[in-house]
This record gives sequence, C-alpha cells and structure tokens, in this order.
Amino acid sequence: MKAHLICSGTELLLGQTLNTNAQYLGQELAKLGIDLHEIVTVGDNLHRLSDAIRRGGEKAGLVLVSGGLGPTEDDLTREALAEALQVPLVYHREAEAVVTRFFQGRSLPVPEVNRKQFCAPPGARILDNPFGTAPGIYYEYGDRIYVLLPGPPRELQPMFEHELLPLLKPLSGGQVILSRVVKVAGLGEPAAEAKIKDLLHSANPTVAPTVKRGEVHFRITAKARGIEEAKQLIRPVEAAIYERLGDYIFGKDEETIEEAVAKLLWDQGLTIAVAESCSGGLLAHRLTNVSGSSAYFQLGTVVYHNRWKEELLDVPGDVLAEKGAVSPETAEAMARGIRAIGGTDIGIGITGIAGPLGGTEEKPVGLVYLGLDFRGQVKVWRENWVGSRWDIKWMTSQWALMKLYQALRQGGIPE
Amino acid sequence: MKAHLICSGTELLLGQTLNTNAQYLGQELAKLGIDLHEIVTVGDNLHRLSDAIRRGGEKAGLVLVSGGLGPTEDDLTREALAEALQVPLVYHREAEAVVTRFFQGRSLPVPEVNRKQFCAPPGARILDNPFGTAPGIYYEYGDRIYVLLPGPPRELQPMFEHELLPLLKPLSGGQVILSRVVKVAGLGEPAAEAKIKDLLHSANPTVAPTVKRGEVHFRITAKARGIEEAKQLIRPVEAAIYERLGDYIFGKDEETIEEAVAKLLWDQGLTIAVAESCSGGLLAHRLTNVSGSSAYFQLGTVVYHNRWKEELLDVPGDVLAEKGAVSPETAEAMARGIRAIGGTDIGIGITGIAGPLGGTEEKPVGLVYLGLDFRGQVKVWRENWVGSRWDIKWMTSQWALMKLYQALRQGGIPE
Repeated sequence: MKAHLICSGTELLLGQTLNTNAQYLGQELAKLGIDLHEIVTVGDNLHRLSDAIRRGGEKAGLVLVSGGLGPTEDDLTREALAEALQVPLVYHREAEAVVTRFFQGRSLPVPEVNRKQFCAPPGARILDNPFGTAPGIYYEYGDRIYVLLPGPPRELQPMFEHELLPLLKPLSGGQVILSRVVKVAGLGEPAAEAKIKDLLHSANPTVAPTVKRGEVHFRITAKARGIEEAKQLIRPVEAAIYERLGDYIFGKDEETIEEAVAKLLWDQGLTIAVAESCSGGLLAHRLTNVSGSSAYFQLGTVVYHNRWKEELLDVPGDVLAEKGAVSPETAEAMARGIRAIGGTDIGIGITGIAGPLGGTEEKPVGLVYLGLDFRGQVKVWRENWVGSRWDIKWMTSQWALMKLYQALRQGGIPE
Repeated sequence: MKAHLICSGTELLLGQTLNTNAQYLGQELAKLGIDLHEIVTVGDNLHRLSDAIRRGGEKAGLVLVSGGLGPTEDDLTREALAEALQVPLVYHREAEAVVTRFFQGRSLPVPEVNRKQFCAPPGARILDNPFGTAPGIYYEYGDRIYVLLPGPPRELQPMFEHELLPLLKPLSGGQVILSRVVKVAGLGEPAAEAKIKDLLHSANPTVAPTVKRGEVHFRITAKARGIEEAKQLIRPVEAAIYERLGDYIFGKDEETIEEAVAKLLWDQGLTIAVAESCSGGLLAHRLTNVSGSSAYFQLGTVVYHNRWKEELLDVPGDVLAEKGAVSPETAEAMARGIRAIGGTDIGIGITGIAGPLGGTEEKPVGLVYLGLDFRGQVKVWRENWVGSRWDIKWMTSQWALMKLYQALRQGGIPE
C-alpha cells in the first residue's frame, strides 16, 4: 500500500517549527511496510489544503494529514477534507467525549470555539486523544483512507501508536516488517561498522547504522509473511552483531543507556556517587532521569574550583598544585573521595576542559579525565573530545555511563 | 515572489533523516519576503523528481531543490531538471573547478563517477561549494528560476548564504521582512497572551506566539521597503510587549535564559551555589552550559537522601523529621545551607517529587518547592508541575532560572 503525507501549518513554511512529525510518521510507516511516496507541507489555507488532500487521494490509498485539528480559525483540516471529498461534517458523540474529558480534567466548561472539534464526516471513526482537545479522524471513502492527526507531537505520537496502528496493520498486505535496534556506545561508527561490514550488505534482513548523540544504532529489519518468520530472519544476524560487538552493546530498541545502567545497579543492589567538574551536573542529571533512581543514586557534587575539590572531595592539595585540576591524578582522587564521602559502592570523578575558552597547548579544550572507583578498584581514562561545549559535556556523560555499564556487567574495572 | 521547495531523498521519506533543510530555507526565504507556499519531499526517483520540478514551475516563480547533487547513481536532481524542462546537460568549467578543488585539497585525483557533477543546463550559473563536491546550479528558464542545492546542511547553508542570497535579494521586490522574538518565562501561554491580546490581531507587524519547553516566544514580524522602516514598525509593538510583560521577559531573539542569567551574574560580580534534590543536577548542568560559568558557579550538590541534606547542607534533622524532605522549610534550609557552605552571594535549594512513583495524596508527583537565598533575603515558592519525570525536572529548572533572573534584575527577592 502507498501512503501520502500532508503536513499542515504556516509555521512549518516559515521555518518556525521543525517538522519532526514527518520523520516520526516516515519511520512508523516504514516499519509497517507501507510505502510513503511523498510528503507535502502547506500553510493554513483552506483551498491549498483541500487541493493537497484531493491530489493525495489521486496518488495513494492512504492519505495522512497532520495538524490543523485545533479549535481556532486557523485550524482548517476538517473543513479541507470535507471540501476535497464533497462530504458534510456532522456531530460525533465520541469526538465530544474527547473534548469534554480534556476540559473536565481541568474543571473547566467546554469553550464555545471547541465545539467545532465535535465534527467529522458521517461514518468516520474518531481517534482518541488523551493529551489534548483534538480528536483524530479515520475516514474510509471509496477505496481510499483519509486520516487526520493533531499537530503537536505529544498528541500525534500516542494517537498513532494506540489508535491508528491497530487499524493500519492489516493494510500492510499480509507482509510484516519487523525491526530490532542494537545499540552501541563507547566505539565510533567507523570502528563499529568495520567489525560487521559483511552484515551491512545483506538483503533480508537489512542492517542499517545510524549515529545518535554519541551512540551507534544498528537497525536490523526483516520482511516476512509473519512475525515468527521475521524473528527467525533477525535472530542469527542479531547474534552475529552481539558476538562481534558485545562489549560495546548496552541495549536494544527503546532502551536507553541510563536505563541499562539503572537496571544493573538495581539488580546488584549497588550505590553510586559522582563528582563532576567539566560535565557540570549532566551525569547526575542523566543518572537521576530514571524513575526509582533514589535506590542507587546517593550523592552528586558539581565542583569547578580547586577549593571544593579539596574541602568537599578530599583531593590532596599537593596533587592539585603539582598535577593540576585537569589531570589523571585529580580524576582518581575525585572518584575515591566521592565514594568515601558517600559511603557508596561506586564513585566517579570527572575533570576536564569543556571550553570553548580555557584550553592551552598542553591541555586543550575537550581534554577530559574520567576516574572510576569500583568497590576499591580504581582506573582513570583519558579522552579528547571535539565539538561545542555542549557536545563535550554530552560525550563525557555518555562515556562515563558506558564505562559504568561495562564495569557493572563484568563486576570489575573494564579496559 | 512565490517559492516552491522540493526536498529530494528517500532517507527523508523513511524518517532516517530529519529535514532541517526545510526549516532553514523556510526561515531564510521568510527573511527575504519571499513567500514559500509549499514544500514537497520525494524519493530518489527520476520520474517523481522531474514531475515534482515540473509541477513546482507551474505554481511558483522560484523553484528550489535540495539534495541529489552527489556523484552516485541515486543522485538524480540534475537529470530530473533536464527532463522536466527538456533541456540538455552540458559541461561547465566552473563546475569542474569546484569538484577538482575538493579532491586536490585531499591530494586525490577526481574519481570517474564525479565527472557528472561537471554538468548543468546551458547558460546555468554554477554556485560554489567550498565544503563538498557538489556544485550548485542557478538556472533561469523563461520567467522561472530553478535552483539546485546540495543536501548536507553544512554544504547547503554556506552556499545559500554566500552564493544564492545575493542573487535572490533583488527578487524580493525591494521588500524586507524583519523579525524580533521576545522571550517570556515563568508565565503560561494563556496568561501571557491575555496581557497582549489586542496586539495579536495587528497586521503589520504581526505578533505570533509559540510555546517552547516552558517558554513563550512572541515573534514580531514586519514587512517594509527597507530595514529602517521595518525597525520602526517593530519598535512600538516591542515596547508595548515589554511594558505589559516586562517582569517575565528574559531575552530577545537567540538569547537563552541561561545566558541572560549568566550575563547578570557577570555584570554584578555575584556567585552562586545550588542544592538540588528532584531536579537531579539539571539546574547545575544548565548554569554551567554557558562558557565562562566558572566565574559565578561555585558549587552544586545533588542530594536525594535526608542524610546528605543534614550532613552536607546542614538542614536541621528536626525540620526533616517534622516537615518532611519535600516541604517549604527544607527548601529554605537547603538554600541557606548551600549558600553558607559555598560562601556565595546566592543559594538555591530545590526539593520535590519528580515521579512517576513516590507521590501521595498530600504530596503528589510534580510538587516542588524552590528556595532562594539572595544575599540573606530568603523566599520559598511552590509549584505542582504536570507531566513526565523529564518534564517535571525541566520545568523546575526553568522556574528556578526565571526566579533567579528576576532577583538579579531587581536586586532582591521577586514576587
């Protein structure tokens, strides 16, 4: 089946909003084996929008429209669908229920302007929206399907997943497309690809790498007549990737490295404390992004100045004076210090130069030392990141999480 | 003048790449006063691409195409233009020079496959590309202009700015579009809009609100015959917004709230220390995202457990026992404690429930207390955020930054 996507919104044409809906829907349709052949973005203009819907129906069996389902005068997608197909808009009780629930949850009456959100073509199916006022619309007309989705991603994505996906699955022609993402950290893309180069040329399943904020994700995608057959195609390829890259793999599919670390800390009943300089609290922030992190996270400190490294973390004054604040010796003392103060199983110390100012020839911007005290075993690593201040902070936190993950998995200091 | 944008690339339809070129070009055309009326994304398919170019020329005087100028078999934009307009592709010396320079800079001969990049329609103008192999093409045909740009943003953006902009400026009909964004935090969108409702209906300049991660941005956009005239149109509207929302405005255009806070801290020579519980280091991370933050940022702690609130921050044990860790009294004691320990001018204490677990009827998920000790003056605020764990952490950091900004601007505790 072929699909056609229309994104409605003048803010998209003016570049005020980045069109993340197009990417999300593109990925989801690809997973379903539905071929998205064109994306058209038009402004909030009734005539252009209805023209786009009409042309979409000429080209594809499934026409998706995002945006323009709100209550204001600029929200014209319902009206444009009615004009394109020459059908009326009529009251739907299910649509009223969506709108009413939203306002009741806030103890407010439904404003007059929102009443137009009760309407859809006769016989249309209403898609629930627990996160906003705009009900979605699924409308079969002749041999075509028209789907109207709200514009805000936090409303569109859950509606797609919970309401639309079950309706679209049967349309993918008995063929299923199944994906598995294997996630790698602590190894660059060229090095990771080199280890599985032969697998990248396979046809079914395909293996495609993407790089995301310091991680390499390998997406294994199989086409088959059923889920079981697809799983059987994926299994040996996944096993081969694990065999060759296992040390650097931290998770699958939606799993984040924070969650992978959290899971190991919970399972092993271990606690952690972190002392950060150049990463400025980002590691603590990421370690506490997981619900239930209070079970393992004991203490974090963000110390820029030597005074606090001495007073709070017990880094010896002569280490700071002789080796400097950005040195392997200081990173080690910070890791040991924070573990001792926190009385935890694990201590992490990070010191470096996030830049863009403050670098020297000897200690350039991006130089970072990472110290890990794992139940008394201590090791320090060195990296020299390249990029903006934000990049350097991010890569440092990524690297610390990966070393921590490796240590937890093998029960000792990794390489 | 009307423009039509075509983005070429199967990876865009599959959602493997986010289409940032559409946003960039939308913004640049808006600044020029050129009306972008439609964006079409198609795959790397000769027929579909040439059809899209032909249709674009029927609708607009300026047709821009991004992507598909590389040397591979999938790069078909040149050929699609030739097919759409029924013109030949011929050798251009300027195009060869671009390709040759790229490989010479790497001490390599020009590969055979790259020779097709030497070609363009007869009479076309070649656009230089210092960052890649793909020369751009500017081609006037009848009363239409066709522009072919490379896909990678790091090649497309400099080519637009240095090569295309001078050619497009005369086309904007002497009209300029100038925008100014005024940024508000600490006030919801409905409340912010209510204060300037009358301004939202003005025609020139227009005032349009957008909500971005806890901030409300008002974009004032004027059309005029010159920059000076546009500035004069914007000035009184901007002044009116400042008059009515001044307490909540932290910056303009590209400025972030972190930068606005940093600037005031630098200017006033003040220092800060923060004690975080539920925000988990995010406030420290954001305060240290600004280069040069070591001048004001002294110390951050992330403490989840009462033990550290007592030992490290000197929160009295009876306050914790009687009022609880999530209480105004604890937030106040944390702010006072971290300021005393850090010896800073300002101390911030944050305690709350980031969820999704850990809430009770009395103290629900999202309840947060923010304490501010500003040179000995102390105040505590309370909020109850709604959303995911990440949302609650983010909104809390946003709120703390805004209260800090207000305190710095007025030299004392804000309301």
